[in-house]
Amino acid sequence: MDSLFSDRIADVPRSFIREILKTALQPNVISFAGGLPNRDLFPVKEIAEAARKVLDREGRDVFQYGNSEGSVKLREFIARRYESRLGLQVAVDDILITNGSQQGLDLLGKVLLNEGDGLIIEEPGYLGAIQAFSLYRPRFLPVPLVQEGLDTAVLKQTLAQSRPKLLYTVPNFQNPSGITYSRGNRQAVAEAVRESGALLIEDDPYGDLRFSGEPAPSFRTYLPQTTILLGSFSKSVVPGFRLGWIVAPRPLMDKLVIAKQAADLHTSHMIQAIMHQYLADNDIDQHIQTIRDAYGKQCAAMLAGMERHFPNSVTHTRPEGGMFVWAELPRGLAALDLFELAVKENVVFVPGDPFYVNKSRTRAMRINFSCVDESTIAAGIERLGNVMKRMIEQTG
Amino acid sequence: MDSLFSDRIADVPRSFIREILKTALQPNVISFAGGLPNRDLFPVKEIAEAARKVLDREGRDVFQYGNSEGSVKLREFIARRYESRLGLQVAVDDILITNGSQQGLDLLGKVLLNEGDGLIIEEPGYLGAIQAFSLYRPRFLPVPLVQEGLDTAVLKQTLAQSRPKLLYTVPNFQNPSGITYSRGNRQAVAEAVRESGALLIEDDPYGDLRFSGEPAPSFRTYLPQTTILLGSFSKSVVPGFRLGWIVAPRPLMDKLVIAKQAADLHTSHMIQAIMHQYLADNDIDQHIQTIRDAYGKQCAAMLAGMERHFPNSVTHTRPEGGMFVWAELPRGLAALDLFELAVKENVVFVPGDPFYVNKSRTRAMRINFSCVDESTIAAGIERLGNVMKRMIEQTG
Repeated sequence: MDSLFSDRIADVPRSFIREILKTALQPNVISFAGGLPNRDLFPVKEIAEAARKVLDREGRDVFQYGNSEGSVKLREFIARRYESRLGLQVAVDDILITNGSQQGLDLLGKVLLNEGDGLIIEEPGYLGAIQAFSLYRPRFLPVPLVQEGLDTAVLKQTLAQSRPKLLYTVPNFQNPSGITYSRGNRQAVAEAVRESGALLIEDDPYGDLRFSGEPAPSFRTYLPQTTILLGSFSKSVVPGFRLGWIVAPRPLMDKLVIAKQAADLHTSHMIQAIMHQYLADNDIDQHIQTIRDAYGKQCAAMLAGMERHFPNSVTHTRPEGGMFVWAELPRGLAALDLFELAVKENVVFVPGDPFYVNKSRTRAMRINFSCVDESTIAAGIERLGNVMKRMIEQTG
Repeated sequence: MDSLFSDRIADVPRSFIREILKTALQPNVISFAGGLPNRDLFPVKEIAEAARKVLDREGRDVFQYGNSEGSVKLREFIARRYESRLGLQVAVDDILITNGSQQGLDLLGKVLLNEGDGLIIEEPGYLGAIQAFSLYRPRFLPVPLVQEGLDTAVLKQTLAQSRPKLLYTVPNFQNPSGITYSRGNRQAVAEAVRESGALLIEDDPYGDLRFSGEPAPSFRTYLPQTTILLGSFSKSVVPGFRLGWIVAPRPLMDKLVIAKQAADLHTSHMIQAIMHQYLADNDIDQHIQTIRDAYGKQCAAMLAGMERHFPNSVTHTRPEGGMFVWAELPRGLAALDLFELAVKENVVFVPGDPFYVNKSRTRAMRINFSCVDESTIAAGIERLGNVMKRMIEQTG
């Protein structure tokens, strides 16, 4: 049977995070490996009430096949929120509802990428995007992330040399690094991309989850005609609905709708109606504030633990939002080796390797704070710090 | 922006059915153009009750990210039903839950098709499959449908000459033709395919909807190792959930799960849980019998109307289930021209052209009976018959 598989499926990296998550399910293991929102914060009662209303009132309608673009009411809500949150003018017809923003990535790959097309990704980069795009066999062009965003010198060089079609970014509280592009970095990136003719994808699942600092403008502010936005309700409401969206310029949107139709006809209109009812009946900003407060405290507990228990030679980011801290061991050490030792001490994280397309045995690691309460964070970071110290002593 | 689009997206046929369906929404128009299940038969109250139970009991669980393969309970139900309905042994791990069987087509294209690979499709063929597969740029190899199934002479010739990788079939009450493969035809097709090394896809959205005649065995009976099954709850329960599944041999399933993960991580577990609860609490066979009875009466009314009002030179199929009759005008006439005349008389159907990959101005048409009540069918078929007679007189 192997001879029957397509070439493209051989290119897709296996999610080795899935394997790690199995370890994380053992009792007594403190897991910083997850990438999940905190389930204690899901608005369960409110959604159940919204579902009751929708099914009592419009069951027959939402059970039928629906349009591929998605619910007009839900898209109107998304458009209004872009205006109120970010000052962006987005028309309802510029929005396509997808099964999470993961499907947005797949549809964009389908519609834009020929085999061998240049695609700039962040290094380290979001694994789900690497997986989704891999199926369309682009030439990945990694540009390093630095503290204030993309490394603009490398970016300019890559744009000039490789004439890429697309630049994929997660400018707010990036997964895995937790880095946020500064305002100045966004301007510089936009400037460089403008001249090149490339399209820029701004994937923003975490933008709502800012617990400190000031928001910077969306790339669409700088590149209104050539920025594609990806959004999601996964982090602000619930991931299990699998509801996200793409905002794209009209000619591209026409193609995306065709691709959506071919992919699964449309996203469940029942799910869309329940989400819209929930959003209409509840104060989403207040709910998001609750998540921000919780994650902010958890992040603070993690950073405090790192200051106290990590060796000085281990560096880490200081996120202003989102769900992840990114740490790096001293040169010469591999996070994979640390992982082996840490598992034995019942504490796990994700070694950085899967977030790179062409590096292995990196010294970086992703450490999640959204799923663990403050006292467990304190205990787990102390445990992890002790393993790091032992590893450094033994190799030094 | 046009220069940025992928080559593959240019290959996808636009759904010209969507345009027709807009016409069909005018008041006074009798529409046989739809492809929808009858919404009056949706079990609205029962699903609302199932949703209430799931959300009261396990809201937090089903709102979190879940596994890519899908709900174990739902897959167990599907496996048991294959055994009871068709005598097929299907393991839970052989089943992947998808967003309708449309997504199954997309995932199979992703995992199996390289550009230029040979893919046998039925002629006329299911438009959604042609759209989904087009994105992977196969070489479509149409094999005509005849009264008892695939034309086995052409099939053998195509298998020998073109060494295709895949054969895509809808053996029960095919969309658009309403044709069902006979037992003998299935055996002959299986025999021919066995030697060739090709995989066979059996897409069976309508199999439950038999209102006359005797069921014939699944292709998996003849080709247990090389048949892929696609199933769906869209026609037996509700389409708006977007719930379907793939049954595939294990090595292929491993690849499909990777592709599913890249496509959208997983299908909503809330939706899966509600469907499972509905199936656990209700007698699905009794519900399906209700649908069969209704569609059987509607089909009988349509065939009676055709006997009475269609010119003798117009031929049509006599389906034993499903939702469609396929009719053909006499040679020299085009269904597209009939459509233009019929619209003026406020009756519409789907001209056959979109169901062919390389033919236009065909004389065939798809006529749907699932969405229209018996008296409206009688009136609409009389109207359509009169337009046909006028057209034939004028051209004769």
